[in-house]
Amino acid sequence: MSDLFPPSEYHRRHSAIQARLQAAGLDAILLTQAADIFYVTGFLTRFWESPARPWFVVIPATGTPIAVIPEIGAYLMGKSVITDIRTWPAPRPEDDGVSLLAEALCDVTSKDGKIGVAMGLETQLRMPLGDFFALQTRLAPRSFVDATDIMHRTREIKSALEIEKLRAACAMGNRAFARVDEIARVGTPLDAVFRAFQILLLEEGADWVSYVAGGAGEGGYGDVISPAAPTPLHSGDILMLDTGAVKDGYFCDFDRNFAIGTPSPEAARGHQILQDAIHAVMEGIAPNIRASDLHTMLCREITARGGTPCGGRLGHGLGVTLTEWPSLTPHDQTMLPAGMVLTLEPSVDLGQGRILVAEENIVLTENGAEFLTNPAPRDITIL
Amino acid sequence: MSDLFPPSEYHRRHSAIQARLQAAGLDAILLTQAADIFYVTGFLTRFWESPARPWFVVIPATGTPIAVIPEIGAYLMGKSVITDIRTWPAPRPEDDGVSLLAEALCDVTSKDGKIGVAMGLETQLRMPLGDFFALQTRLAPRSFVDATDIMHRTREIKSALEIEKLRAACAMGNRAFARVDEIARVGTPLDAVFRAFQILLLEEGADWVSYVAGGAGEGGYGDVISPAAPTPLHSGDILMLDTGAVKDGYFCDFDRNFAIGTPSPEAARGHQILQDAIHAVMEGIAPNIRASDLHTMLCREITARGGTPCGGRLGHGLGVTLTEWPSLTPHDQTMLPAGMVLTLEPSVDLGQGRILVAEENIVLTENGAEFLTNPAPRDITIL
Repeated sequence: MSDLFPPSEYHRRHSAIQARLQAAGLDAILLTQAADIFYVTGFLTRFWESPARPWFVVIPATGTPIAVIPEIGAYLMGKSVITDIRTWPAPRPEDDGVSLLAEALCDVTSKDGKIGVAMGLETQLRMPLGDFFALQTRLAPRSFVDATDIMHRTREIKSALEIEKLRAACAMGNRAFARVDEIARVGTPLDAVFRAFQILLLEEGADWVSYVAGGAGEGGYGDVISPAAPTPLHSGDILMLDTGAVKDGYFCDFDRNFAIGTPSPEAARGHQILQDAIHAVMEGIAPNIRASDLHTMLCREITARGGTPCGGRLGHGLGVTLTEWPSLTPHDQTMLPAGMVLTLEPSVDLGQGRILVAEENIVLTENGAEFLTNPAPRDITIL
Repeated sequence: MSDLFPPSEYHRRHSAIQARLQAAGLDAILLTQAADIFYVTGFLTRFWESPARPWFVVIPATGTPIAVIPEIGAYLMGKSVITDIRTWPAPRPEDDGVSLLAEALCDVTSKDGKIGVAMGLETQLRMPLGDFFALQTRLAPRSFVDATDIMHRTREIKSALEIEKLRAACAMGNRAFARVDEIARVGTPLDAVFRAFQILLLEEGADWVSYVAGGAGEGGYGDVISPAAPTPLHSGDILMLDTGAVKDGYFCDFDRNFAIGTPSPEAARGHQILQDAIHAVMEGIAPNIRASDLHTMLCREITARGGTPCGGRLGHGLGVTLTEWPSLTPHDQTMLPAGMVLTLEPSVDLGQGRILVAEENIVLTENGAEFLTNPAPRDITIL
């Protein structure tokens, strides 16, 4: 909570958001998503898992942020830098915080002012849609306008304190991956591997494990989002494990590939190509290129080594959610500033429906980039 | 996936939804939330953790459901009962599935038809709000109307197959709670207990652990949603652990209290009162009462035994999310049909900011109710 970061870190964040609100001519921004609310308050709880209650934070263009939250959260929010905390006994079907939120917004906006709310890519409105419509009606002639950029442009530049947290999350992942030989061998069912890998992450210090995925198959795998079946690992299989484990609210998100016994020459070579491509990109990278440029670089380095790139997006932002914008795709023109933390997630097509996916976490610096993960070895690890 | 349930289970669900769509005069319902999409397809993946991509399922009032999803999900969805699967290469900023979804909706609705979408309590629209507005414009004069009830009334009545899954999730929780003596004693830091308890749940068969919360304090605890601090357990503390662990996509959600050494007389008595109140309510319960009635019963049984009930909601629905509607509060008039799975979650105020919370999971039957959990012993367990 409040001891995650000093108050100055939150004040810096509020100021950055307020500067952007002023520049955009908005009176305030309404935040409803867990990640945004965590970012501006440090309010960290797994209680978001319950869809029963909405939570709101209003940041006015000038002045003090207001938390409008279910009273069950008052104690925890009270330990944050937020001083204006207004609560209601949620869930209350006849008025689940709408009046209280409307009042808070009226307090900090002019009668025909504009209120920002995230409406764009990778955002969701975490409150009942009907309540949002009621809010619109009640606040008119004030209007709600898209403010996706305000939070994206602020959150995407990680402070030194945040980079420390992300580095710690990655270190936890490094330690768990270094112990995969304890949990996976010929005959181990894949679902048991997934379960045991989550245990390793907890043992290595994860507060919780928000994401584990992967795959296993002879000479490579196909799908990487399915739940694990109880299929035993076979000699010749390539096993991939991918994790998003959480420490102090910050995520790592990277994977590792393992050969169960001797890998096929194609898989062994594919692994080298991916690692070599990542290192080549890291040599050539600089801030203030576009997400699409980085996609191009990854594809070029794979192709130059005789590999066939595949997969729609070859990486993405990382921070207080498992994935943040931008997406390393040909479509995404987001500029990549220094301080942005990214995953590089290239994959190669090995034919016959088999792929190999590598993933590392990096931070863009003034002159280039640094790994936050200990990069995978060039040669695939044999279990 | 498809082997979670036989296809007939999904067809039954589709028919139930379609009957309600027809009765409400809706041409189709648009589903965007993970739980709703899992419910109608069996599509189970932790990939929802990434906010990058929206996912859609359209169920027309008559005919075949349509999945409109990112192509990365095509393989997994292809193993479900859904036969009409339409994909796009997400994320694609310039059109992230909106055209494809609009087309699917046009295919199954009349020109001025009504399309249902959840807008009510405990629901969220899991797609960018801007894309929803674009969809509204594009589909006019069709209109979107609130269809919260369609999914709530369908999902809240659990089939025998679902109750089996929920019972298995609870059994997993029972086994983990029976082992808490292995992980918590005087001197163990609370954050280590939270971590170790998640490991126990995984060892006992959880696919993943979506929720662990709790608290510890002398003679009782205060807040129950904060992350665990590294504070060591002391003799005289009451430790509470609450979990939402997941098996095959179904949740348990219950807690247990433990005394570290000899409990205070107030805590010991409070525990008895809560357990006695739960058993008394279980004797008197019948389906087709209201959520508010059950709240009244719990309060009455606590008060009759000299306890002071506290906490806003004393239980809630349970199923494919950690909490489902209704809420056991004075405000919630939802009727409780046979087949509904609920948590009973009464708490007593022990004074000086200390409370005690009990929680059991039950299923309403034609004549009464059955425990899905092994109910906690009357006397608090001493560690």
